[in-house]
Amino acid sequence: MSQSDRVYLYDTTLRDGAQTMGVDFSAADKAAIARELDALGIDYIEGGWPGANPTDDAFFAALPDLSRARLAAFGMTRRAGRSAANDPGLSAVLGVGAPVVTLVGKTWDFQCKVALGIDPDENRRMVADSVAHATTRAGEVMFDAEHFFDGYRDNAAYALSCLEAALEAGARWVVLCDTNGGTLPEEVERMVGEVTARLPGDRVGIHCHNDTATAVASSLAAVRAGARQVQGTVNGLGERCGNADLIAIIPSLMLKMGFETGLAGPDLARLTQVSRKFDERLNRAPNRHAAYVGESAFAHKGGLHVSAVEKDPRCYEHIIPDLVGNRRQILVSDQSGRSNVLSRFREIGIEVEPDNPKIAHLLEEVKLREFNGYAYDGAEASFELLAREVLDEVPVFFSLNSFRVIDERRWNAKGELITLSEATVKATIHGQQTMTVAEGNGPVSALDTALRKILIPVYPTIAGLKLVDYKVRILNPDAATNAVTRVLIESADDRGGRWTTVGVSSNVIDASYIALRDSVIFKLMRDGETGE
Amino acid sequence: MSQSDRVYLYDTTLRDGAQTMGVDFSAADKAAIARELDALGIDYIEGGWPGANPTDDAFFAALPDLSRARLAAFGMTRRAGRSAANDPGLSAVLGVGAPVVTLVGKTWDFQCKVALGIDPDENRRMVADSVAHATTRAGEVMFDAEHFFDGYRDNAAYALSCLEAALEAGARWVVLCDTNGGTLPEEVERMVGEVTARLPGDRVGIHCHNDTATAVASSLAAVRAGARQVQGTVNGLGERCGNADLIAIIPSLMLKMGFETGLAGPDLARLTQVSRKFDERLNRAPNRHAAYVGESAFAHKGGLHVSAVEKDPRCYEHIIPDLVGNRRQILVSDQSGRSNVLSRFREIGIEVEPDNPKIAHLLEEVKLREFNGYAYDGAEASFELLAREVLDEVPVFFSLNSFRVIDERRWNAKGELITLSEATVKATIHGQQTMTVAEGNGPVSALDTALRKILIPVYPTIAGLKLVDYKVRILNPDAATNAVTRVLIESADDRGGRWTTVGVSSNVIDASYIALRDSVIFKLMRDGETGE
Repeated sequence: MSQSDRVYLYDTTLRDGAQTMGVDFSAADKAAIARELDALGIDYIEGGWPGANPTDDAFFAALPDLSRARLAAFGMTRRAGRSAANDPGLSAVLGVGAPVVTLVGKTWDFQCKVALGIDPDENRRMVADSVAHATTRAGEVMFDAEHFFDGYRDNAAYALSCLEAALEAGARWVVLCDTNGGTLPEEVERMVGEVTARLPGDRVGIHCHNDTATAVASSLAAVRAGARQVQGTVNGLGERCGNADLIAIIPSLMLKMGFETGLAGPDLARLTQVSRKFDERLNRAPNRHAAYVGESAFAHKGGLHVSAVEKDPRCYEHIIPDLVGNRRQILVSDQSGRSNVLSRFREIGIEVEPDNPKIAHLLEEVKLREFNGYAYDGAEASFELLAREVLDEVPVFFSLNSFRVIDERRWNAKGELITLSEATVKATIHGQQTMTVAEGNGPVSALDTALRKILIPVYPTIAGLKLVDYKVRILNPDAATNAVTRVLIESADDRGGRWTTVGVSSNVIDASYIALRDSVIFKLMRDGETGE
Repeated sequence: MSQSDRVYLYDTTLRDGAQTMGVDFSAADKAAIARELDALGIDYIEGGWPGANPTDDAFFAALPDLSRARLAAFGMTRRAGRSAANDPGLSAVLGVGAPVVTLVGKTWDFQCKVALGIDPDENRRMVADSVAHATTRAGEVMFDAEHFFDGYRDNAAYALSCLEAALEAGARWVVLCDTNGGTLPEEVERMVGEVTARLPGDRVGIHCHNDTATAVASSLAAVRAGARQVQGTVNGLGERCGNADLIAIIPSLMLKMGFETGLAGPDLARLTQVSRKFDERLNRAPNRHAAYVGESAFAHKGGLHVSAVEKDPRCYEHIIPDLVGNRRQILVSDQSGRSNVLSRFREIGIEVEPDNPKIAHLLEEVKLREFNGYAYDGAEASFELLAREVLDEVPVFFSLNSFRVIDERRWNAKGELITLSEATVKATIHGQQTMTVAEGNGPVSALDTALRKILIPVYPTIAGLKLVDYKVRILNPDAATNAVTRVLIESADDRGGRWTTVGVSSNVIDASYIALRDSVIFKLMRDGETGE
């Protein structure tokens, strides 16, 4: 069967993805996400299930204005023993006026008979009647064949007859759903191939779940077998193990398999941004290891690789990162060599002769510190500071003479807790010894406040410094409370800067102080302060 | 070609997985992980690269005692123009005495010529010489064919000739590596099939990376095409987008494709535990959406009754969760919440009438605390304590009146650091107010020491209590140093007991105290102390 090279993308983030534990879209979120996906070039955007919950109703009450995509409303085939026109659920779905209606129904005779107690013939009529009725109200109707692969394995003839009934009733697409997510790619490919041998592939879609960590591969396998619509979600959102991840599927389809989608080249180059912005909206940390779009997807760490990457990217990168809007990242760490360090220097704008003996000294210093628990991979500012210190480029802004942190907890006669966290800091700034004290709602917060209090009179820009993330990791947990602690602090300032620093010590307060100190010094250096 | 059904598993978590950004194994971590994987039934455990960094050297200096697995040392083929016996890198690898040696080398003539400037014939001699030399020192030698798929695509004859050279030189296995991770499963399957048509499949392995989110599928496809060794990492750890995830591969191989591995059924039933414990060791939150082993992998929505799932698990679950040691999760409705609590009571041996009104009270308390950041899944002792407290079964052993922790850091005239961590504790025991002070090498260690010091005179068994693990996690990192902190403490005693307790507070010292306190009380309760 001759096949077009155009694959249609169907996003179900706002419906199937909304089932994810802990994800809670507002109607406004849904509208914003729909607009993003429209701008990206997704063909179909499933907005939700009218009548299922107040959020979906609010979303469909004000249909977003889409320019490239078609909006789909999701629903279920009519109930047994009722006419499609008189089914309230179906009416709710058809009533919102979405240009596309997607109806899910059964295709597994075992499920009809055993789990639902419905005669399989009546189920097939439910599919046909519902699709036929929907075509009178929507421009385009699809049939989502629930449990298709389980059903086809048990009774292929019945499962196929349901698809045929839907197509004959006017469905534009029949979508083969692996509802439990347990079917492996080879089976998906075989069964889709058998379907597209009988039905036109450009009316067949695929809908996979990631329960065996193969949803992306199964979706691609279905396209190879002739299916021409792929359903999935942004970043693989979805219940249990997630749905097929459209963000990973799209580049493989376009760049490796040679298919066309609704995305043009410049759209594809926005993929990384769309993926990360989506996570920001959900207030989730983007997966730095995500295929194609993750922050680490084109990161190079091993020392032996880096010079080679720059010389010949083909040896180390499977695509040019720019094609999906991502970028190459060179990491410095224990594993790295001289060329890593030099290339990092170029990135952060440090100019140094390649044969400067201080580079070897810095490498030794980095290795030693990493052996003791430092990690510069995620703490670029501390790395830059260390590098500039080795190169004697960091002014002395202040020197700490001492600090003391007191944490007190006291229960009064009524059993009420009275708390105190207080930090005292003594430092010398511009030859002047000075001392201050501050409270906080914990020891690190008190120390942070005291340190700022002592610095701001001399370096007023410190007032614009803000800690935005604070992470603690115990490195050798077996040592229990004597364990070595690593603290990572992410800072931001009112000039749009953002950087991460690291501190390591057997004492969490010390480790925090070291990371705080690095952050403050990095800020002063950036601001062009000259120190003493 | 007739093929055995036995697939060999090769874990490279400790070498390739160690390249992951932000992951830094200590030598002790490595030894502990090797022992876990050995107990699970993994066939080969690659421990690292002798000579590459101090951690790997420390690990190989004290080889872990493995009972089922074979330990592999990783290295590179000899350099061009040097004899294998005189190559210092190779000597370092062979010198550690690991029973298996895995050598990586080139098979892509383009890479040899363009990137490395090595004559392809010399490269093939490098492979053969190095393997042959290694067989004189190690019981088993493998050849990792770097960039095999890219090389095979460019020049199949040359790539194959390198594999043949390795086998002829005595390699037990040649492992086809998709180094850049860009090859899709269909290509992997086709090319592996072409290789196994010429070479025995039970000497061919596969090593995939997840750059197209298809590493699991490609690994399974290679086995279908005849390969009989699969390399991967625990939870898909690895640089860029990660390596193939052995935890996802194993159940599909065994339960869906009918292959045998080194894991017996009871080993497979420990898979979930091994996966989560690994993340705990790295202080990473386990991926709740992970295939097979994720907390949500068999989660069912609230509306769905337990009875429906139990009546027809086939309609809702692709495998029985127990097979991989996971469990079904019914997201809480009040009813299932109550039966959950009751079933946990039975597990820990608390007898209570199902209609006891205190159960509702406990449910409320657990919900409230979990909302505030507590997590009882990993802290059974704190859960049991809370339950018994609600049931009025916990005696009053002591009451804390106050504590104070002082942390002081002072630099003397020579710039040397002088440190002090001191904790003062006041408590009432048996009506007697008592007070003590202790030092530690950090605030929590000082507090722990002071608390024991005050309790041991009255409760001598506390001397046998030991903290064996201490973990800190920040729950709302955006709040920076004001964030809510969760501390998990694992304790053991000299009677073979082991338990975990949890504390949550915006102050890390408070959170630690709460977890310490729970641990001490749990110990006293276990020992049958009766309190005041």
